[in-house]
Amino acid sequence: MGNRIDGRACAEKIHDETGARVQALKSAGVEPALAFVRVGEDPASKVYVGMKEKASARLGIQSRSHVLNEETSEKELLGLVEELNQDPQVHGILVQAPVPDHIDSARVFAKVDPEKDVDGFHPLNLGKLLLGDRTGFVPCTPAGIHELLIRSGIETKGAEVVILGRGNIVGKPMAVILMQKAKGADSTVTLCHSRTREVSEHCRRADILIAAMGQPHLITKDMVKPGAAVIDVGVNRISDPSVSKGYRLIGDVDFDGVMPVAGWITPNPGGVGPMTIAMLMRNTVRAAEQAGHTQHG
Amino acid sequence: MGNRIDGRACAEKIHDETGARVQALKSAGVEPALAFVRVGEDPASKVYVGMKEKASARLGIQSRSHVLNEETSEKELLGLVEELNQDPQVHGILVQAPVPDHIDSARVFAKVDPEKDVDGFHPLNLGKLLLGDRTGFVPCTPAGIHELLIRSGIETKGAEVVILGRGNIVGKPMAVILMQKAKGADSTVTLCHSRTREVSEHCRRADILIAAMGQPHLITKDMVKPGAAVIDVGVNRISDPSVSKGYRLIGDVDFDGVMPVAGWITPNPGGVGPMTIAMLMRNTVRAAEQAGHTQHG
Repeated sequence: MGNRIDGRACAEKIHDETGARVQALKSAGVEPALAFVRVGEDPASKVYVGMKEKASARLGIQSRSHVLNEETSEKELLGLVEELNQDPQVHGILVQAPVPDHIDSARVFAKVDPEKDVDGFHPLNLGKLLLGDRTGFVPCTPAGIHELLIRSGIETKGAEVVILGRGNIVGKPMAVILMQKAKGADSTVTLCHSRTREVSEHCRRADILIAAMGQPHLITKDMVKPGAAVIDVGVNRISDPSVSKGYRLIGDVDFDGVMPVAGWITPNPGGVGPMTIAMLMRNTVRAAEQAGHTQHG
Repeated sequence: MGNRIDGRACAEKIHDETGARVQALKSAGVEPALAFVRVGEDPASKVYVGMKEKASARLGIQSRSHVLNEETSEKELLGLVEELNQDPQVHGILVQAPVPDHIDSARVFAKVDPEKDVDGFHPLNLGKLLLGDRTGFVPCTPAGIHELLIRSGIETKGAEVVILGRGNIVGKPMAVILMQKAKGADSTVTLCHSRTREVSEHCRRADILIAAMGQPHLITKDMVKPGAAVIDVGVNRISDPSVSKGYRLIGDVDFDGVMPVAGWITPNPGGVGPMTIAMLMRNTVRAAEQAGHTQHG
């Protein structure tokens, strides 16, 4: 029977640590501030930004919210990012994905000052991650999963890690984190995706299985090695006429089926999601600490 | 019986293509130039730089060689790199590794202008590689292996790729290249290293096996799936009193043993090495083309 990995409780602990760092900054006269940029009215984006603003408020981090309309040009958006780059009162900048189709999100992420890139999406920060250079910011979702593994006491050294999904936000940086020669990493990583021939076979040999494919209940109990740690990153909307919204969100893992086989398992929701926000807050405080350090020293 | 992958012949073809681009640049009034920086008297570094200078000369690329003594400080080296960054006559900069122990090579590589980083070691270029952004420079050895696979007609899409070794110069960028959703990539990649528990098992399921561990004849025929493509990146010095130098260089693959089992196999020397140089030349010409484009357009 799997140990349920409580992402909410773990995130709370990290928030406590981060909150203490916010207080220390304030005592030193620094007001940590995070700028949110949202373009258009994507409902999921609104929800995500709302949750992040709420977490910021709780910890005493200032939110500076910029909501641009759907017709905003890429040039205007890049101009706003540049203003925020130049603003010494802003320590972190988050441009919420997705942006409208006429805007190249990669160009926008690459415009954010790497020192304010608390989302960890700038190529410079991703290159540092690949090199094992710890001075950069790490993308929040894989950083949160990494922290969950470490704080749950799950052995990564020499572990067979199988990651499903090769997105820029989760799959690829997750692989890069766990392949490093480093404490809390040192895993043998296999990255699977839509072109992988024998996904089930790879899953069955995983000590740590991380599902970020965006396929509802892709992972069933026959695909899990007994005792494995199973991390569910999927957020899939499936229609459900029995609820007023008409849909519900389910993960990539069939929790009820997998729970009895797994050694550890994240619920979803309540697993990876809260950790993503905890990492964003921690990155922001670090950015503020580093900016303060640069200013004063 | 394996097809011998002729790295020398493949490199020659690429040199022909690159040479034609050099001539086109010269016709347009651009003299492509590559700066070499070598610190100290490491014998292998001397040999490598010498080979690269020779290839440059053959293709009509100017070499600007800077040899600094062993006692050069990091600050002096960074100063030279900055000068070369500023020099519009220099299109590519190569700082030959290894540098002496008192110099942080990562800091030096990160100092090179990413637009002149023909070695592809700058974190910005590595981050672009991870993101699947093709505007950056790709490290020469994994780029050369990638080109060898493509030009040999070896199917990468859906292939099980097993890479041994997680260095910053070969293993990690190689994994990143082949995991991308792209033509000539799209592989299921597993990265093995010193902490991997069952290296032989991973090797035996590989359609493409890339050995970059630096362990003489690590790969024996029992570790190779019949028909697999086997790429040998190892350069290991073993003592051999029967030759005048007192040593010889051998690869990570037991070529004679593996040859009858493999579908394709690189000899070593004569496999990956020449391709590394071909990629360096190609990167340099591209840097010169882009610099010209920026100047004129």
